[in-house]
Amino acid sequence: MSLVFHYAPMSSAVTVHWALEELGVPYEKVKIDLAARDQDRPAFLALNPNGKVPLLVHDGTPIFESVAIMTHLGETFGVQKRLFPEPGLKRAEVMKWLVWCNVSLGEALSRWLHNTSPRIPAERHNAKAAEVAKADVEKHLGILDSALEGRSWLVTDSFGLVDLHVSGWVAYVGMCGFDLARWPKVDAWVKKAAARPSYAAAMTP
Amino acid sequence: MSLVFHYAPMSSAVTVHWALEELGVPYEKVKIDLAARDQDRPAFLALNPNGKVPLLVHDGTPIFESVAIMTHLGETFGVQKRLFPEPGLKRAEVMKWLVWCNVSLGEALSRWLHNTSPRIPAERHNAKAAEVAKADVEKHLGILDSALEGRSWLVTDSFGLVDLHVSGWVAYVGMCGFDLARWPKVDAWVKKAAARPSYAAAMTP
Repeated sequence: MSLVFHYAPMSSAVTVHWALEELGVPYEKVKIDLAARDQDRPAFLALNPNGKVPLLVHDGTPIFESVAIMTHLGETFGVQKRLFPEPGLKRAEVMKWLVWCNVSLGEALSRWLHNTSPRIPAERHNAKAAEVAKADVEKHLGILDSALEGRSWLVTDSFGLVDLHVSGWVAYVGMCGFDLARWPKVDAWVKKAAARPSYAAAMTP
Repeated sequence: MSLVFHYAPMSSAVTVHWALEELGVPYEKVKIDLAARDQDRPAFLALNPNGKVPLLVHDGTPIFESVAIMTHLGETFGVQKRLFPEPGLKRAEVMKWLVWCNVSLGEALSRWLHNTSPRIPAERHNAKAAEVAKADVEKHLGILDSALEGRSWLVTDSFGLVDLHVSGWVAYVGMCGFDLARWPKVDAWVKKAAARPSYAAAMTP
């Protein structure tokens, strides 16, 4: 069995990195230098035509999109380790939050970044659109805060890949300028998840 | 077994509707009148705090996000009907395209709509951002076109839920003003998928 993980530090590959560490499966790391445009080289584009990390190549099959990788890792290695539910309604609840994270929260955050980030030329920014996007990100953090009401973890009674992925993403939202202290249940859950030793391993460049 | 499908015609619920018809499972339909803001009523928000369709309630468990619903339907009813692969690398490839559709193609399309749609106040539009978003949508259609090279269907040798979901989404991209004829393999595949009787059933309000 061969798992080759293509990643860049401090990118959207972080949660996959964290999952691989948490699962304790053997894998090979290939660092992609985004500044040097490694992601645009033909050999990489042949595996991921989107030119993005994360990418996981499992026995020669390239898998892109972090939620797809997370689902595949969960299904393949996570059930036995109690980090991913067996097929059924609990797994469906895990899926709804994994997808919600990258689709709904992700779209709002992307819209906010495209209208505010110094990495995007200022001529493409729109202050009114930024304001609406900011409110949308905050609305999503509120939805998550309510979902965590009375719970230790998001879906199951113990820590799972869904907590890892969504909390890792939300930590990034925090780094983008949203003060997570405004959503105390989210804030406590992000900190509790990040206290796991696997998180520190994944944050090592 | 109870499946209650909350939907609105001509919304992002279409692909789930199509999947339910294709799978031939018994389900109950609840139409949500978006113009009357049914989606903001407390009874609906208790099931989906995002206030959006589609929503599928399976034996009392609410599942939101179309990719999560699609994955759940595939896993629960689709494997036996050969519309969704068993766990393994083929399923991982299905997941990578399902997620890619709503995350990567979806984000680019959303950015384009937010900068051009008459449903968004013009003061929030930015012409330069719209231009970049348009190129991003087109880039994604090109990636899909290349992935369909030499293939009848996207991942497996026969039609599956991944073809249904992604082609249904791409048909919507076409309705948003992108001329799919520019990507001939995509165009042919969208038309072939839409020729299935289940598609017509799903397009019935």
